[in-house]
Amino acid sequence: MSDDFIRPEMSDDDSYELDSSLIERVLAVVRLDDTLGLTALLKPLHAADVADLLEQIGASSRRKLLALWGAGMDGDVLSELDEGLREEVIHALEPATLAYAIRDLESDDVVDLLEDLEAPQRDAILQALGDRDRVAVEHSLNYPSESAGRLMQREVVAGPEHWTVGEAIDYIRQDPELPEQFYHMILVDPMMRPVGYVTLGKLLGSARNVKLKALCEESFRTIPATQPEADVAYAFNQYHLISAPVVDDSGRLVGVITIDDAMIVLDEEHEEDIMRLAGAGDGSISDRLWETAKQRFPWLAVNLCTAILASRVIVQFESTISQLVVLAALMPIIASMGGNAGTQSLTVTVRALATKDLTSRNMWRVIRREALVGLVNGLLFAAALGAFGFFWYGSAALGAVLAVAIVINLFVAGFVGVGAPVILDKMGVDPALASGTFVMTVTDMVGFFAFLGLATLVLV
Amino acid sequence: MSDDFIRPEMSDDDSYELDSSLIERVLAVVRLDDTLGLTALLKPLHAADVADLLEQIGASSRRKLLALWGAGMDGDVLSELDEGLREEVIHALEPATLAYAIRDLESDDVVDLLEDLEAPQRDAILQALGDRDRVAVEHSLNYPSESAGRLMQREVVAGPEHWTVGEAIDYIRQDPELPEQFYHMILVDPMMRPVGYVTLGKLLGSARNVKLKALCEESFRTIPATQPEADVAYAFNQYHLISAPVVDDSGRLVGVITIDDAMIVLDEEHEEDIMRLAGAGDGSISDRLWETAKQRFPWLAVNLCTAILASRVIVQFESTISQLVVLAALMPIIASMGGNAGTQSLTVTVRALATKDLTSRNMWRVIRREALVGLVNGLLFAAALGAFGFFWYGSAALGAVLAVAIVINLFVAGFVGVGAPVILDKMGVDPALASGTFVMTVTDMVGFFAFLGLATLVLV
Repeated sequence: MSDDFIRPEMSDDDSYELDSSLIERVLAVVRLDDTLGLTALLKPLHAADVADLLEQIGASSRRKLLALWGAGMDGDVLSELDEGLREEVIHALEPATLAYAIRDLESDDVVDLLEDLEAPQRDAILQALGDRDRVAVEHSLNYPSESAGRLMQREVVAGPEHWTVGEAIDYIRQDPELPEQFYHMILVDPMMRPVGYVTLGKLLGSARNVKLKALCEESFRTIPATQPEADVAYAFNQYHLISAPVVDDSGRLVGVITIDDAMIVLDEEHEEDIMRLAGAGDGSISDRLWETAKQRFPWLAVNLCTAILASRVIVQFESTISQLVVLAALMPIIASMGGNAGTQSLTVTVRALATKDLTSRNMWRVIRREALVGLVNGLLFAAALGAFGFFWYGSAALGAVLAVAIVINLFVAGFVGVGAPVILDKMGVDPALASGTFVMTVTDMVGFFAFLGLATLVLV
Repeated sequence: MSDDFIRPEMSDDDSYELDSSLIERVLAVVRLDDTLGLTALLKPLHAADVADLLEQIGASSRRKLLALWGAGMDGDVLSELDEGLREEVIHALEPATLAYAIRDLESDDVVDLLEDLEAPQRDAILQALGDRDRVAVEHSLNYPSESAGRLMQREVVAGPEHWTVGEAIDYIRQDPELPEQFYHMILVDPMMRPVGYVTLGKLLGSARNVKLKALCEESFRTIPATQPEADVAYAFNQYHLISAPVVDDSGRLVGVITIDDAMIVLDEEHEEDIMRLAGAGDGSISDRLWETAKQRFPWLAVNLCTAILASRVIVQFESTISQLVVLAALMPIIASMGGNAGTQSLTVTVRALATKDLTSRNMWRVIRREALVGLVNGLLFAAALGAFGFFWYGSAALGAVLAVAIVINLFVAGFVGVGAPVILDKMGVDPALASGTFVMTVTDMVGFFAFLGLATLVLV
């Protein structure tokens, strides 16, 4: 136990980063086909660290490592692997090894593994499970994908609401099949509907004759089994829940979700938002080259179309540009400033929608505020660009055109930066996914049109 | 208790979003100066929902509400408020009200409140605390900002490693000052160094004569008090910890961090990343107009400088553009595609650095991979743009220039998209903060230079 202090697998300067000398030693024993040495190195590691190690070594070393160590492969390692790599690893394992590895997993972890697999692999794993586990897993898979029903564990510790502390403790003592982790005892009415819960700390700290009802937590909330997992994560984060009972349509207890699962979902939701805002798909650095190129292609293709659209605006002003070529050098400045300001508003808005801070109620106030922020910064940069035009190019008229164009574009950027994600959200489209393109297209087109249009009126 | 089922404050269609009819009712009683009615509406709400309500109503309604309800203000509501608004609310409260509100808070929540306040407000709150609490809070404030020492609660449940289940339960029963929430009993050696911990579930489910050591969790890890809170959140997420003992330099137990606090930090770290990637500061929609404009100004100013830099590249090719004005319309396409591809690589890289999946070990492999992804997509779009140039403008030479320029720019975008954040990270700068500008500047300049340079060689 005290060995844990030394944490040999951790490097000193960068906490929790896998020690690269450990990785070197693993690669060395793999090269020597030394199964025993490999097991000695991997066994002390947490499953999450083994998964990270598999993600960090090259594909050919990984294949060799799996061939050597496959039989020692733990189901937990599979659970921790990046989805892209997980399929590769599952393919690389013998069916018997795979069946052995997953037999130790809790049913909710098996569900999580199965969700992302193709049908043949899925069936192979289901066949490997015992009858009881298979039924439990299949039952969970009946709930909608990414719902509370898939996230929950089916093992619960519950008792009638009229019990005392002593009755509860005796019950827990006698239960031979307690879940691996539990933090509350759930109180249910005679219809099996949860009515509150008591922390184990309170159970342990109270006298045997105290009624459980008197110890109930204030922050109790039930989660419908069909609730999207993103909302589950939100509820845990908003109300500081540690675990929450899951109920079916009639309010009956069907399972429990614990905060560690909610934390994983919160992390995944964030990853999805940040990747979608950048148009980077579900990408991770362990995906294969072609997979990554394919994921990013669609957003680039959309961007090509909108960039061509914006270039059509410029084409309308070709004669202006041919008379004053410097306009061609200056117009990207106006467009780029608009794109940046739009991205700022957009990101704040996408985040506020995710945290439910932006609602129909305060929508107009927020839109007005963002447009005004754009206007304020527009006026500040108008002064800067006006001066730039005057002193660098010696033309007050050019300075004025730059100044007015930047005010218009930053104002529009603020307006569409918040408006586009709000409208997409109302339409049921993920605002992180599609707003970016729209905002950039608008700020490019408005930027080019305002600047070249004003220049045509004033300068030529 | 069963009232919780109805959850009157929740709207049906959008889970956990504040019901707007509730907000209307609150505003109505505020208009009527009806303190009793206001208290009746606010009292059943969770502190986090009251905070959301304060964030969603206008500034003048908020001032009126606080004047009416101030005395009922709960310290938990202050903890839940957005930082920007928190200062406003604290200013609006009478010193006596404020002192009363925070008296109920746990010491780690007081520390969290104090961290972001100016010195005079900070001292006012410290004075309001009892002697014991003030010493505890001041002790925590001695740890570095955003460290484990600030995050931990000082109340721990610990016992000697040689204890049995029975001894542990008797000890917990007799302790009059148990923490509000605890999930483990920490085992310590005679020097007060943690050597393992036992879940309360195992304590409850085991016979009295079982040794605690036999029930220890495998996933046990200690956290140094000076560890940055971002690393703490990472450890909880990576190793699925529920609570973790915090130790000082000599390995002695000084406090404990629970997963709910780690989840809040994880959420904040994500928010910081996504906002910094967009150059939106620490922005939230409840910040004031001027505050927001000021937060976004620096990034826009940097962007203005780099945009002017990129425009200087274009100026070098003025004579080429004046001979073939269509180049002015096409050059933003190349720059924009590069900017997008660079942002994709950059975002995946920033995320991989945050999750410690990208290390010195696999750095070169990842850089090569991203550059190759850029190359692959570059070749695909080269075909598209080549065709566009040929069929739309009837010029094979123009198509070829577009094609070669896009290959060069997407290759460079992949390379700097991963290279820039990696280098910044090595230099100790947050890669989310500064990489975006750098990548966009490089892809703009390379895009303009490659396209206009090739055009100068081939077309004019």
